[in-house]
Amino acid sequence: MKQALAKPIAMTRFLDANDVAALVRGIGVAEAIVEVAACVREDFSRWADFEKSARLASHSNVGVIELMPVSDGMHYAFKYVNGHPRNAQLALPTVMACGMLAEVATGFPLLLADLTLATALRTAATSALAAQTMARPGARTMALIGNGAQAEFQTLAFHAMLGVDTVRAFDIDASATTRLMRNLAGVAGLSIHAATSVDDALRGADIVSTVTADKTRATILRADMVRPGMHLNAVGGDCPGKTELDADILRRARIVVEYAPQSRIEGEIQQWPEAPVTELWEVLSGAARGRVDDGDVTVFDSVGFALEDYAALRWLHAAAMERHAGRYVELVARAPDPRDLYGWMMAGDVRAGAPAARAAQTGEASSIVMA
Amino acid sequence: MKQALAKPIAMTRFLDANDVAALVRGIGVAEAIVEVAACVREDFSRWADFEKSARLASHSNVGVIELMPVSDGMHYAFKYVNGHPRNAQLALPTVMACGMLAEVATGFPLLLADLTLATALRTAATSALAAQTMARPGARTMALIGNGAQAEFQTLAFHAMLGVDTVRAFDIDASATTRLMRNLAGVAGLSIHAATSVDDALRGADIVSTVTADKTRATILRADMVRPGMHLNAVGGDCPGKTELDADILRRARIVVEYAPQSRIEGEIQQWPEAPVTELWEVLSGAARGRVDDGDVTVFDSVGFALEDYAALRWLHAAAMERHAGRYVELVARAPDPRDLYGWMMAGDVRAGAPAARAAQTGEASSIVMA
Repeated sequence: MKQALAKPIAMTRFLDANDVAALVRGIGVAEAIVEVAACVREDFSRWADFEKSARLASHSNVGVIELMPVSDGMHYAFKYVNGHPRNAQLALPTVMACGMLAEVATGFPLLLADLTLATALRTAATSALAAQTMARPGARTMALIGNGAQAEFQTLAFHAMLGVDTVRAFDIDASATTRLMRNLAGVAGLSIHAATSVDDALRGADIVSTVTADKTRATILRADMVRPGMHLNAVGGDCPGKTELDADILRRARIVVEYAPQSRIEGEIQQWPEAPVTELWEVLSGAARGRVDDGDVTVFDSVGFALEDYAALRWLHAAAMERHAGRYVELVARAPDPRDLYGWMMAGDVRAGAPAARAAQTGEASSIVMA
Repeated sequence: MKQALAKPIAMTRFLDANDVAALVRGIGVAEAIVEVAACVREDFSRWADFEKSARLASHSNVGVIELMPVSDGMHYAFKYVNGHPRNAQLALPTVMACGMLAEVATGFPLLLADLTLATALRTAATSALAAQTMARPGARTMALIGNGAQAEFQTLAFHAMLGVDTVRAFDIDASATTRLMRNLAGVAGLSIHAATSVDDALRGADIVSTVTADKTRATILRADMVRPGMHLNAVGGDCPGKTELDADILRRARIVVEYAPQSRIEGEIQQWPEAPVTELWEVLSGAARGRVDDGDVTVFDSVGFALEDYAALRWLHAAAMERHAGRYVELVARAPDPRDLYGWMMAGDVRAGAPAARAAQTGEASSIVMA
């Protein structure tokens, strides 16, 4: 009997957007970011295990839709994600994402989940991981340029993982900064200042995070704004034609990217095709140094890589199972006799234990006649 | 008030495997195949509208996992599908699939659905569409080699769309043939004969459908078995290293494929890289002829193309909306203020009309303090 009870049921765990939100609330946002960061670090440290490819992007004149697959031979993950800057006008998010984690051995989908929120968590977690090896030790003040949907997560990640206690926030829309300050007003040991300009935000900043969303070649930071020793966390430039930094900044900086073949297409370094870069896995593993001396200007040219979503999905799966979040769904048809897809379909409700399912298994349903 | 009621709610329609099965049962399997075929024909006839790419495959030593994206500038579709021949030993299907239909204008996912069953429908529909232009007029007898999960659907498609009234079925596992005959015993005007060998199945056959599942270079049909005038519907060979036909058959045949760049990697023609081929859209549009004279041997070298899944997804979406099948899910997070993802997450249940959602919209939830 024990064996019968222990037999795994092949159903897919589904977490909708509310399930993920409740799960993250329950864990605590900062703690969730720290946990995701541990997964990202682990997975980047076994870089060679993964089958990697640049994302598959479908561009239109208003945005981009992408599929980002990755596999380590045990699990296969992919993310569906869009980027539509004008969606805000339609009360839709600029970026929406969902993804799947599947078994390589069978192809069975273990988890299907909203990844909009998890993308924000893993982006912030990866930014902070990079900064841990790239920013000057003792950096406590961060300029945050662009106070959109990512702003709270970036702030909490740098607060929890680097000890950043002062954030100087600027957005061309002052209400975005107000929202950020209101949302994080209760976080102990963190003070957020509304800056009146990019220059004002940069005053005293050791770390500069740029998280703007325009799908254009913007120059959020000019070369003359950058001081020796600064770490730039450039998150907003993430597709062809979308950059945030003056190319001259890149030429004097140590640059770390997630996956060079993809970053040369999508990152800040699309402005400088022959830029010398180090990959994040190298600095996380200690094979390379993100910063050599205090005067270095360092740039984490982040575009988001499938491996981060893999890490986010496996964290989400483990957290959901542990906390019984979400529900099981019959995402893919699973006939009792896999070769009898037709009989399964004609037998009616085939959820485990339903009468029709038993009938199908014993063949009783075979007398059903097609219309 | 009318305007308020008419305002579209951005939620994703979700059809699980049971929902799709119930929908297809309700419509009738043969009718569903005919409807899907009309969509496939329509979409192939506007071939130039689609952004096409070969599928993105991740191979392991036990199977393959694939993503198949396609877009026409209005809608974007992708399918997740595996192929694991040994899954039958684990009581799991060899092939499982699900997919999504999204708006190109916003990236919003309109539909998420099991595609295991819809894949069987579109494969059979596409086979029959090709045969309508490639088989000899008056063909009424089909040999069906391989009586697995696809067998009933292929049989019903050729019965409904070509008037095939006699199927000579063979499988190395006789119980598969028995199942096929039992499942379709009630279909008027159709007789299915259990053949004792491939040679026996081929007796009197005008059309030969090969739908075997081994992931090996098999020779299901030898060149000496093929008679002038035969149409071969080769469905089983669909990945590198998996073929069903003797290469000599290809050299004497007119060959039609779905999308040449993909078929040269995955189809029967992987055995003959320089094979001259016609694409299905050409014969469906009348730009090329599938058969020139009665003595031709014709081969539809089918591997399954993303455009067929696009057609299946849009059919499924329309049918589901018309018949109120499935349900809405919050697949991706949609904060009332898209830039306030954090506030949305902290506000609790945000389903339309839930008290917390209203609070978030009016800003009342901003006093919630992070743990």
